[in-house]
Amino acid sequence: MRKVTLGLANSLDNYIARKDGGYDWISWSDEVAELSAQFMKTVDVLLIGRKTYEVMLASGQSSYPGAQNYVFSRSAKKVAQIKKLLAARRKPDKSVELVSGDAVSFVKKLKQQKGKGIVVFGGGKLSHALLEAGLIDEIILNIQPVLLGSGVPLFYPMKKQIDLKLLSSRALKNGGLTVTYRVKH
Amino acid sequence: MRKVTLGLANSLDNYIARKDGGYDWISWSDEVAELSAQFMKTVDVLLIGRKTYEVMLASGQSSYPGAQNYVFSRSAKKVAQIKKLLAARRKPDKSVELVSGDAVSFVKKLKQQKGKGIVVFGGGKLSHALLEAGLIDEIILNIQPVLLGSGVPLFYPMKKQIDLKLLSSRALKNGGLTVTYRVKH
Repeated sequence: MRKVTLGLANSLDNYIARKDGGYDWISWSDEVAELSAQFMKTVDVLLIGRKTYEVMLASGQSSYPGAQNYVFSRSAKKVAQIKKLLAARRKPDKSVELVSGDAVSFVKKLKQQKGKGIVVFGGGKLSHALLEAGLIDEIILNIQPVLLGSGVPLFYPMKKQIDLKLLSSRALKNGGLTVTYRVKH
Repeated sequence: MRKVTLGLANSLDNYIARKDGGYDWISWSDEVAELSAQFMKTVDVLLIGRKTYEVMLASGQSSYPGAQNYVFSRSAKKVAQIKKLLAARRKPDKSVELVSGDAVSFVKKLKQQKGKGIVVFGGGKLSHALLEAGLIDEIILNIQPVLLGSGVPLFYPMKKQIDLKLLSSRALKNGGLTVTYRVKH
């Protein structure tokens, strides 16, 4: 079974974006870039929530290169909007696929296919569905030194408790703190 | 000015207690006890939220020894209940004082008095009022390796962003992770 990692930057009060999707408070650095690049070598599938993908698209990036990118949305209207935005690009991007069906059953199938790891980028609601379904194996956070006060939550209330094991933590030069937890299934 | 530290154990999804006040998920150890004892030497005042204090009382402890303990509640009814519980104890506890007035102005005065540090124990709502008022100088968390899914939140939505500086982090033998942040005023 392929490993599914929830990989995100969050504020200490567990927001992953401002209410308007803003991520100006997330500090990037050579050290973060290197850690991120190392990690990305271990995955070949990205699962992206619709809101996160809109922010990604707005910054000019339609996919993460060298991997299959799946964008999840339950809304047919939103899917159509994103398809339109993608079609308007100079070159079609074959590494992006929009998924409007049930994320849980989709990811269950993906996990059983051969391949490298799978990473979940953003998407509080997507993460929530996958966490509750027991499909997340690892959580890597880059905790930013800020209390945002409001925004898009990382974790939504869940019906069950999920036990974790701290595998590693590292204070970064730019003030961030990366933590890696294994989910105890 | 005396330093005010918000010192708590929290789940990775930022709860400080189960909905019923339960804290069975917080792991204690010799290492935690030593860190806690070292820190407690630096303070002589404890600010305790009413809900946290009720849990403390239920476990048989009416105050933290060697410090002045202030318990905050806006509810006259709750204050009366706690007074009754305290009066029923074998010995009166002179190191506990119930505060029903405005916590912010009370803590502002305390900060200007001479003395050691001040620590805020529990109390999501108390912490929230003090954070928004800019009265918290340091945040020390003992992050437990668990997603509780529901409970009493550590952080409530705030009207403003609070920038922090990571001073230290330490992975504990029992799986916890302590982090110390300075609040940038």
